[in-house]
Amino acid sequence: MSHNSFGHLFRVTTWGESHGPAIGCVVDGCPPGLKLDEAWIQPFLDKRRPGSGKYVTQRQEPDQVRILSGVFEGHTTGTPIALMIENQDQRSKDYGEIARSFRPGHADIAYAWKYGIRDYRGGGRASARETAMRVAAGAIARRVLGDGVVIRGALTQIGRDRVDRAAWDWAQTEQNEFWCPDAAAAQRWEALLAGVRKAGSSIGAVIEVQAEGVPVGLGAPIYGKLDADIAAALMSINAVKGVEIGDGFAAAELSGEENADEMRMRQDGSVEFLANHAGGMLGGISTGQPIVARFAVKPTSSILTPRQAVTADGRNTDLLTKGRHDPCVGIRAVPVGEAMLACVLADHLLRHRAQNPEAPVVGRLPLG
Amino acid sequence: MSHNSFGHLFRVTTWGESHGPAIGCVVDGCPPGLKLDEAWIQPFLDKRRPGSGKYVTQRQEPDQVRILSGVFEGHTTGTPIALMIENQDQRSKDYGEIARSFRPGHADIAYAWKYGIRDYRGGGRASARETAMRVAAGAIARRVLGDGVVIRGALTQIGRDRVDRAAWDWAQTEQNEFWCPDAAAAQRWEALLAGVRKAGSSIGAVIEVQAEGVPVGLGAPIYGKLDADIAAALMSINAVKGVEIGDGFAAAELSGEENADEMRMRQDGSVEFLANHAGGMLGGISTGQPIVARFAVKPTSSILTPRQAVTADGRNTDLLTKGRHDPCVGIRAVPVGEAMLACVLADHLLRHRAQNPEAPVVGRLPLG
Amino acid sequence: MSHNSFGHLFRVTTWGESHGPAIGCVVDGCPPGLKLDEAWIQPFLDKRRPGSGKYVTQRQEPDQVRILSGVFEGHTTGTPIALMIENQDQRSKDYGEIARSFRPGHADIAYAWKYGIRDYRGGGRASARETAMRVAAGAIARRVLGDGVVIRGALTQIGRDRVDRAAWDWAQTEQNEFWCPDAAAAQRWEALLAGVRKAGSSIGAVIEVQAEGVPVGLGAPIYGKLDADIAAALMSINAVKGVEIGDGFAAAELSGEENADEMRMRQDGSVEFLANHAGGMLGGISTGQPIVARFAVKPTSSILTPRQAVTADGRNTDLLTKGRHDPCVGIRAVPVGEAMLACVLADHLLRHRAQNPEAPVVGRLPLG
Amino acid sequence: MSHNSFGHLFRVTTWGESHGPAIGCVVDGCPPGLKLDEAWIQPFLDKRRPGSGKYVTQRQEPDQVRILSGVFEGHTTGTPIALMIENQDQRSKDYGEIARSFRPGHADIAYAWKYGIRDYRGGGRASARETAMRVAAGAIARRVLGDGVVIRGALTQIGRDRVDRAAWDWAQTEQNEFWCPDAAAAQRWEALLAGVRKAGSSIGAVIEVQAEGVPVGLGAPIYGKLDADIAAALMSINAVKGVEIGDGFAAAELSGEENADEMRMRQDGSVEFLANHAGGMLGGISTGQPIVARFAVKPTSSILTPRQAVTADGRNTDLLTKGRHDPCVGIRAVPVGEAMLACVLADHLLRHRAQNPEAPVVGRLPLG
Repeated sequence: MSHNSFGHLFRVTTWGESHGPAIGCVVDGCPPGLKLDEAWIQPFLDKRRPGSGKYVTQRQEPDQVRILSGVFEGHTTGTPIALMIENQDQRSKDYGEIARSFRPGHADIAYAWKYGIRDYRGGGRASARETAMRVAAGAIARRVLGDGVVIRGALTQIGRDRVDRAAWDWAQTEQNEFWCPDAAAAQRWEALLAGVRKAGSSIGAVIEVQAEGVPVGLGAPIYGKLDADIAAALMSINAVKGVEIGDGFAAAELSGEENADEMRMRQDGSVEFLANHAGGMLGGISTGQPIVARFAVKPTSSILTPRQAVTADGRNTDLLTKGRHDPCVGIRAVPVGEAMLACVLADHLLRHRAQNPEAPVVGRLPLG
Repeated sequence: MSHNSFGHLFRVTTWGESHGPAIGCVVDGCPPGLKLDEAWIQPFLDKRRPGSGKYVTQRQEPDQVRILSGVFEGHTTGTPIALMIENQDQRSKDYGEIARSFRPGHADIAYAWKYGIRDYRGGGRASARETAMRVAAGAIARRVLGDGVVIRGALTQIGRDRVDRAAWDWAQTEQNEFWCPDAAAAQRWEALLAGVRKAGSSIGAVIEVQAEGVPVGLGAPIYGKLDADIAAALMSINAVKGVEIGDGFAAAELSGEENADEMRMRQDGSVEFLANHAGGMLGGISTGQPIVARFAVKPTSSILTPRQAVTADGRNTDLLTKGRHDPCVGIRAVPVGEAMLACVLADHLLRHRAQNPEAPVVGRLPLG
Repeated sequence: MSHNSFGHLFRVTTWGESHGPAIGCVVDGCPPGLKLDEAWIQPFLDKRRPGSGKYVTQRQEPDQVRILSGVFEGHTTGTPIALMIENQDQRSKDYGEIARSFRPGHADIAYAWKYGIRDYRGGGRASARETAMRVAAGAIARRVLGDGVVIRGALTQIGRDRVDRAAWDWAQTEQNEFWCPDAAAAQRWEALLAGVRKAGSSIGAVIEVQAEGVPVGLGAPIYGKLDADIAAALMSINAVKGVEIGDGFAAAELSGEENADEMRMRQDGSVEFLANHAGGMLGGISTGQPIVARFAVKPTSSILTPRQAVTADGRNTDLLTKGRHDPCVGIRAVPVGEAMLACVLADHLLRHRAQNPEAPVVGRLPLG
Repeated sequence: MSHNSFGHLFRVTTWGESHGPAIGCVVDGCPPGLKLDEAWIQPFLDKRRPGSGKYVTQRQEPDQVRILSGVFEGHTTGTPIALMIENQDQRSKDYGEIARSFRPGHADIAYAWKYGIRDYRGGGRASARETAMRVAAGAIARRVLGDGVVIRGALTQIGRDRVDRAAWDWAQTEQNEFWCPDAAAAQRWEALLAGVRKAGSSIGAVIEVQAEGVPVGLGAPIYGKLDADIAAALMSINAVKGVEIGDGFAAAELSGEENADEMRMRQDGSVEFLANHAGGMLGGISTGQPIVARFAVKPTSSILTPRQAVTADGRNTDLLTKGRHDPCVGIRAVPVGEAMLACVLADHLLRHRAQNPEAPVVGRLPLG
């Protein structure tokens, strides 16, 4: 058991605090012989990087990743891969009053009660800064999965404003600062977020991640189900409050007739599913359909409007947060969600392979 | 790593198929000296039992649990607790056509592709029958947590019909067959489910589980967060497609001002939270507020209306399912959800205790 | 983490006390499609069975194993395999005085201090009875390894009397009651053990286990080394006090020149090792040479000569043990050692396969 | 599961290769509030450091450790502690011929077959350099155990020359370069090792480690026994071929009467053991007696006498190793063995505490 590790055969352990000298991770179990260097990982980090747009925190971090072990002559060796990013912009002075108080909705008070210790510097271990290492690990996971598996994410909702699914265009996600797949929604969000930022407020969001080309058979019943592991992985991201697979909560409203993903045989013996309410898995095992998962992110607790709070020495106070923060943390959560999905799939690919080395990649009938 | 175990220090391993001779589980890590016998566990099983009401499967299973180890003279010994329930009513004849076909939305086809094997008998390992052992393990988990922690569940939605939260009354959950906390909703659901059953259809549902009296500090950042483990535990239940903590997806619609759970000092040095949007945890660590989680259950795939399906030998067919099934599996999911929450909390209580043996149960300020 | 499980991908969890209703185990992670039934497992159990010879405990246990899950139509399904043996001969009356005292060298007192509970019935969980489930799991592990891997064990020393390695003949191990590979030693041991039994004494022993045909590459550096896992597996057997790989402690006496297992190329590109000081592994990874491990078993603490002891209520006493016990537990430890080696190798085969699905079985040069 | 982690609740993950830019580790699960800084860890590293004496490798490494996370204002915070040591003296040129050949008895060939990759630089991950991180983790483990637990090690045998146990004096271990507790033996070893070094040879050794003041009850039956975990921990150290607890292999030669550690009640209700054949544990659980373990280290495979070897491209060769190596790796294994014992005990202390928070530290009778 490890509190700071996830995955079993593709196993990621992260370390580091927001305002310490560095953050890092160790990826253990990565198969040998895969192409890997910093140049492969860096672009994924750049997507998540603070200081990279108008709608994210202005903390300046180049987030330059360094591979310290496990790679030799551009290929993985099968031994643990250690990654490190040195922190650059740890302006601790920003944290004057916060150092003496607990923000409503922030993890500080829970850490203080759990550990009996107050590390006030920007959230310490609870900071979203830790997610940089998830993204780096996710880049390695993509190598494990190979080019046949395509993992993408999009922001589908900010506050009450949702994208129009009929207008969904993956290419659009690269055209705006929100990873928004709907051009019209992206335009509306510009105004929406400008208002939020100006008001010193914050707002929640919903992210959708998808994986195409996933082999059949990933997911280990009963307590290593693919959906359960995806749920844990996404819920472990800072500020996430809900997770859905496929239709998610909408499935509760359906009848059995509506919810059935009917099937037809294709000429080549593979099975065509006529719908994907299930989000790519049945009984927690992948079926070859696209994996579809969504997660909801609450608004960040760091806002300029004073809220009733308490001080570390046990007095009431009214607190507002002046530091550098994201008006909508959901935006930077998109690459993080993709990375977590990649890591879960890589882990399950290795787990599946161990028990079923000759399992088919595409599901056909009759069984071979 | 184990595919069929959950929890780390309170560790549950289940085994058994729907139509095998028995199902069972091993609970390892339970502290010694706790009162435990079959009479404590049985009532929880009776709540989940098939054949116990009009709106659940008519399969007749007494679900009589037997403790085979780990208990001596009515108390736990610290060694593994083995439980077993013998299957009684494994009418395999019900599964004639299903043995040759794959139901849309059912795990059969995913198991077949994963394992290359077709165990057609009532879903084999994927059957909801396995959840009996979760409930039994949950009863032991409640002993670990002690009487100070109260765990309850309720059905809050069937199809599109939701309970009125203003009318919530826990006592009502014992007065109807749905674990419904709203008497008026329960009445409406009688008619609703009678219709579903008559039509040979099925329908989805939403369940809410709560835990009161939970000590502060449970949950181990970053990858053993309480919310992440609850999400995995609930998502691992058959047919679950979504999980929420606190406000869940509704949090995405809030501003930072709305979402803040403001705080005031109480006379005794404890902290009063003025709201509970967070659902009892911050940064994945319990704060002493009630833990609140919800999960959505899809309609069962076993319905009397024919659906387009495929046969094991690779032909198209139209399939309807005649066996004994639940029109709304969400009903029996209530005690299962409670049990999973109990198990996660028991596990985290032991984990917290290992690292912080003198941690406070109630959060106060200033820190001790 | 689980206190009562071993292995990772081939994962065995055992449960049960010496004098409870039954003992059992769950084997999780076994690949699907392997031939398995009770008839395969039973002969291995019969080898270890109490009451089966002059030199082992006279407790009568048929040790009839039952498969309760994970097997369908004679083949494994990939889901957890549950095994159970009902206890028959739990003569608790034998334990009169022992119930009130602690035997020197017996685990009772350590359990009592650890758990604050006194389960005096024949050692409870600490009893060698638990090893029956190891043997059963080992039989399944052999199926995972396949017929190409041959695992055998032998008793090489009782007290100070060792076998003559020049006289080693595996066929002899089936010809005497000691699994002794040296016919002359076996004859001497008859007299030796008759004396020990008559004196109500007990004596220690050394067991050697070997595995031939093991693929290269098993063992996961640094903390999943094959030798480390074998050491833990063998040391976890009741009464074991030492473990050696290859030359073991004798290696401490060698020079680098003597200890080198020199190598020559064979015509087919495989490598011939000219010696096997290493016991079949380098850096904790198998090389294709025979795996060789030894373990030392102390004399059982149950003897007829009174020893200075203490009572549960804190008084001095002189204690002798009258129950049914093994004069030399090392004899029955032979099949247990074989089983543990089989389990470790099966686990590592699956682990290796996950990370290196196309790894060679035989090591050749140049690398492919 | 993680190949490069050990421990469960005190969990250490190491990374790094002999000739990479750095080595490091992450220690997860360390309780909060313990005093910790680099100054505490460094002296333990200095004990193991290469280049520190006449009889160890002349590779020059200051082994300056840096704490990168998990410590705030001189105390642990409960979050993962990351440590790093930058490599300084990675003279790759030393490895000319070795880069093209496989040394007899060295892990290179096993890694090559396992991973299909040849990282020839000084053994890569298999190098003893990795043990620096074990020593660093062990220093943290000592903080977890507290000052009441004293862990010490000694070299008890080089080649065939053993210490005289009657002359054992712990203070002597600080007076010579061998951690030898017997002044006379240390003097003999000077000559012995001078000869070995001059001959370009190497020689094996035996190390003993002890822990005093260990609480009763550590060790989790059946598969988390303290002796099994110590065996795995010691066997995982480079070049180790055998492990003993207490009397070890000598126990095989004893009768039950000789082996019994008889007991007497003390005035204060504690139990006095009249001998310690068991090495401080019964049934894998600590009894409060000193923990005693020994391990045998083979001679290093790097010697100046040519041995029959094979090349990476599959030809026979005669190979001698010119690099900088330890004539007796057993010397530097002393602090490594101490560290591993400390880590296992710290892990078990946390595990015990989780299940038995009020367990006694000293075993008394009657039970409380």
